[in-house]
Amino acid sequence: MTKIPVIGLLTDFGISDSYVAILKGKILSISPHVSIIDISHNIQSQNINQTAFILWSTYQHFPKNTIFICIVDPGVGTSRKILCAKNKNYLFLAPDNGILKYIFAYSRITRIVSVENNNYFSNQISNTFHGRDIFAPVAAYLANGLSINKLGPIVKPKTKPEYFLSPSDKKNRIYKGKIIHIDKFGNLITDVLLNKKLIQSIEIEIGNTKVKEYAFNYASAIINKPFLIVGSSGLLEISAQNKSAAKKLNVKLNSKFRLLIKKK
Amino acid sequence: MTKIPVIGLLTDFGISDSYVAILKGKILSISPHVSIIDISHNIQSQNINQTAFILWSTYQHFPKNTIFICIVDPGVGTSRKILCAKNKNYLFLAPDNGILKYIFAYSRITRIVSVENNNYFSNQISNTFHGRDIFAPVAAYLANGLSINKLGPIVKPKTKPEYFLSPSDKKNRIYKGKIIHIDKFGNLITDVLLNKKLIQSIEIEIGNTKVKEYAFNYASAIINKPFLIVGSSGLLEISAQNKSAAKKLNVKLNSKFRLLIKKK
Amino acid sequence: MTKIPVIGLLTDFGISDSYVAILKGKILSISPHVSIIDISHNIQSQNINQTAFILWSTYQHFPKNTIFICIVDPGVGTSRKILCAKNKNYLFLAPDNGILKYIFAYSRITRIVSVENNNYFSNQISNTFHGRDIFAPVAAYLANGLSINKLGPIVKPKTKPEYFLSPSDKKNRIYKGKIIHIDKFGNLITDVLLNKKLIQSIEIEIGNTKVKEYAFNYASAIINKPFLIVGSSGLLEISAQNKSAAKKLNVKLNSKFRLLIKKK
Repeated sequence: MTKIPVIGLLTDFGISDSYVAILKGKILSISPHVSIIDISHNIQSQNINQTAFILWSTYQHFPKNTIFICIVDPGVGTSRKILCAKNKNYLFLAPDNGILKYIFAYSRITRIVSVENNNYFSNQISNTFHGRDIFAPVAAYLANGLSINKLGPIVKPKTKPEYFLSPSDKKNRIYKGKIIHIDKFGNLITDVLLNKKLIQSIEIEIGNTKVKEYAFNYASAIINKPFLIVGSSGLLEISAQNKSAAKKLNVKLNSKFRLLIKKK
Repeated sequence: MTKIPVIGLLTDFGISDSYVAILKGKILSISPHVSIIDISHNIQSQNINQTAFILWSTYQHFPKNTIFICIVDPGVGTSRKILCAKNKNYLFLAPDNGILKYIFAYSRITRIVSVENNNYFSNQISNTFHGRDIFAPVAAYLANGLSINKLGPIVKPKTKPEYFLSPSDKKNRIYKGKIIHIDKFGNLITDVLLNKKLIQSIEIEIGNTKVKEYAFNYASAIINKPFLIVGSSGLLEISAQNKSAAKKLNVKLNSKFRLLIKKK
Repeated sequence: MTKIPVIGLLTDFGISDSYVAILKGKILSISPHVSIIDISHNIQSQNINQTAFILWSTYQHFPKNTIFICIVDPGVGTSRKILCAKNKNYLFLAPDNGILKYIFAYSRITRIVSVENNNYFSNQISNTFHGRDIFAPVAAYLANGLSINKLGPIVKPKTKPEYFLSPSDKKNRIYKGKIIHIDKFGNLITDVLLNKKLIQSIEIEIGNTKVKEYAFNYASAIINKPFLIVGSSGLLEISAQNKSAAKKLNVKLNSKFRLLIKKK
C-alpha cells in the first residue's frame, strides 16, 4: 500500500465559516491523496497559550511524518514570520508568535526555517487570510515531498521554549499556575506537569476555593467535591464528578491559582 | 480498487478539545488507510440514552464492515467492561453501560466479547482516557483485519436489549414516553416508534401543552402550531414549522410526556 | 495514483445530530473512495442567503470535479425541484430555492437538470430527509462517474442569478446593503463586492453607528474602533481589532445598512 500523508489542522477559525473548508480545498487541490485531520478549530480567538497546549497534547499521537498547520495568528498581514519547524517525526507550520513554545521545549527540533519562498504560495496573497494563501499550499507541497529547505532561510525564532510548571517538594512550596484550557466536561487543565506521586501532597487555591481532594480516575472521586487529578496529558487538572468544575468553581480560561506543597 | 475500512466515532468529547483528534491520530498511526467518520461528538456529557439513539439511527446507513467506536463512559477507570459486539455487517466497541441497548434489541448480534487483551492496547493505560489507550488502537487493529475473538472472552453483557415504545390502538390507550434527543432545528425526538398510519389517532401531553396536529412533511404543517410527525428514523417527533419546537414548548432533553390514543 | 473524487457538504444540519453522519455513511456505501469535506453545517437554520454566500466563497478553492451537496431546504417534501448544475469544473446539487444564485451569477453554467430519476435514489424516500434519500446517493453515483444527463430533464430553474452590490463612485452615492454572514471572529460580512481602491471613499451607517475608518489587514487597524476592510472573499467587511464587531456594534445576521460614497 502507498503511504498516506497526514495533515493536522489547528486553528481558531471555528467551523461555522468557510475558512476551514477553504484550507482543505486548497490542500486537496495540490495534494489529493492527503488525509486531513481536524485537531481543533475552536481555540478561543487568538489565544496562543491554549493553542500551544492543544498542539503539544496532541501531536505525539499522530502518525510519523504528519504535518501540523497551526493558525492562530493575530499578526496576520504584518511582518511576523511564518515558521516551519522539524523534529525527528513531524513538521510544524505556525506563525512565530509562541504557538510552538512547548514543542520547542519538549521535542528535539532539528531545523527551523522562515517560510518565504512564494513559489509555494497562492498566486495572490491576501492580507487577511494567509491560511488559504500560504499555510495550506505550503503544507500540501510538503505532503507531496517538498523539502523544508526550499521554503526559506534557517532562522532563530522569536518564540522561546517554555516549560510547564513542575512542582517538587524539594524546592519551593508555593507555585503560581494558570488555567490554560477548559475541556467540554468542564475539567480545568493547568500548566502544571505533575508527577502522579505528588498529587497527595498538594493543594490548590483558586478564587476563594481550596481544592485538596484528589482522585486517580473520574468515577472514583468523592461526589460533589472538586478534586485534583493528573489528566491524560500529564498535566494537573481540577475536576468535579459528573459536573463541570469550571461552573462549580466559577473559573474562566486563563484564571490564575496558587499551588501549595503541604508539609509532611 | 482496494477496500477502505470505515471507522465511525460517537463520543461526548466535544470538538473544542484535542480528545477526538488524539483518537484519530492513534487510529491512523496503526491503520493509515482507514476512513474515519464523525457521527457526533456533541452528545450531552454522559447521556447514555441519547448516545444509544444516535447510534441506532445512524449505523445502518454506513458501509458494511464499519467499526463503530462509542465512547460515552462515565465509568472510565472503573471495572466496567468494554464490549465488542458483532452483527452480520458491523462491529461495535462500547462500554457495557447501555449504549448498545437498541442495537441489541433491533439487530441480530452474533457475538459479544469483553475487550481485555492488552496486546492491542497502548503500552500505558491511563485511568482517564481509554478512548486513546484502548478503543482507538483496538478499532484500528480490527480495521486491519484482527478477529474479535482475539480481543477477549465471550461475555453476557449487563446491557439488556431495550425496545422503543410501540403504541397500538389495540392495547393500552396511554403511554409514557421521553424526549431522547433534540435536534438542531429544535425537533423533539421521542422514544416512540410509530406506525405512520397511527399518527392521526394520537395526541401528546407534554408540560402544559397538548399536541394533536400532525403532518407528513415539515413544510406542509399548519403554521405556528407544534405538530406530530414521524421523523426520518421512524420515531415520533414533535416539530414546529420553521421554528424550534423545543423553544416553543419550553421542553428540555429527557423530558417526559404522555401519549394518548384517541377513541375512534 | 488514482484520482480521488471530492464531495463538499454544505448544510444547516448542525453537527450534534446524526444527519451529517448519515449522509456520509450513505455516500461511502456507494462510493467508498470519495473524499468527503465538510464546508459548514452551521448555516443558520434555513438561511438561503448565508448558504449562497458560503458556497460562493468556498467552491473555487476546491479541486476540479468536486461535487457540492447543498442542503438548506425549508421546502423538503414539497414539489420544489432539486437541481444539478454543472459548470466547467464543478457540479452542484441543491434545492431550487436560491442557494445557487451567486454561482449562477459569477460562473458559466453549462447545464442544469432537475434531479428526478429515482434509479439513483434510496429505495424508500422519506418526506423529511431528502439529504439521506436523494442528495447523498445521487452525489455518490456522480462521484462514481454517472453523467448528470441521467438524473433528469434539463430545466430552467426558479433560482435567478443574483449579483452582489458593486458600488461605484460614478453612479449612485447611496446603496442599501445587508449583513449576509457573521464569522467566528465577529467580522460582519456584507453583500458588497468592493474594489479595494474605493474603500477610502465610503462610509457605512449601520444602526446608530457610522463606520468610516478602514484598514488593509486586521492587525494594522486603529485599536478600539470598528473599521472597514475588504475580506478574503472580496466582499466588504466591518471588523474590530481583536474584538467582535458584531458585539461591539450590536449587529445581527441579516441586518441592513446604508453605504455612502463620499464626495471628493
